[in-house]
Amino acid sequence: MTSFAVTAIGKVESPLTQPESAPRQPDEGAPAAWLVFEPEVLEGLHSIRPGDELILVTWLDRARRDVLTVHPRGDRARKQEGVFSTRSSDRPNPIGLHDVVITAVDGRRLQVRHLEALNGTPIIDVKPVLSRDRQR
Amino acid sequence: MTSFAVTAIGKVESPLTQPESAPRQPDEGAPAAWLVFEPEVLEGLHSIRPGDELILVTWLDRARRDVLTVHPRGDRARKQEGVFSTRSSDRPNPIGLHDVVITAVDGRRLQVRHLEALNGTPIIDVKPVLSRDRQR
Repeated sequence: MTSFAVTAIGKVESPLTQPESAPRQPDEGAPAAWLVFEPEVLEGLHSIRPGDELILVTWLDRARRDVLTVHPRGDRARKQEGVFSTRSSDRPNPIGLHDVVITAVDGRRLQVRHLEALNGTPIIDVKPVLSRDRQR
Repeated sequence: MTSFAVTAIGKVESPLTQPESAPRQPDEGAPAAWLVFEPEVLEGLHSIRPGDELILVTWLDRARRDVLTVHPRGDRARKQEGVFSTRSSDRPNPIGLHDVVITAVDGRRLQVRHLEALNGTPIIDVKPVLSRDRQR
């Protein structure tokens, strides 16, 4: 299968350091975090303001890539599903999508409210949320 | 900056072949398309059914990666913005996010209604849409 090189453009700074204790979704007690970007991409951030709703795209570097089926939410009482029907971080390309709200902008650091990603997680992209009307 | 190898797990089959004529968003006249997966990841698709709303993640292999500011929607009358505030395909990691609805499942091929990605675009991940309540 063909591969491409995806580059870390920044990383997450968060009090979350243990995979076992990390919430699965941001509304399950995820703390605020900082997104710290590489100086090389600073110009790409210049339109971002507090209050912006963005999609943070991460590379979940502690995930397993050889997993194709999982018990949803790790619950072994639930029937196994194909990973592409779940948000499991274990999957062939461990890409994380996180809806975030910007609460502060400080140079090449952006603060977000509620993020379930672990400290040190590489950032690979940031995009605006399109309204539901625009997405469909 | 650190890099990771992202692998194409499939590709888009679409009548769209010319970047100039491709719609920017699916509600701007995008045609139906097939998502064709590599046999190696077939097991990960087994829970997907017609009617499922999924997020297709692609690698926009014809994009430029050295671009940090753009005129929104290519309109030079509009002020340049940082790429991370836009859905431009030109960006450091050319990752595409597409909301799709599955209309047919045929082995390792999934048909979707409305897709603005070009024929041959590599697929790198597929995830379920979480409800708005779950995302925030």
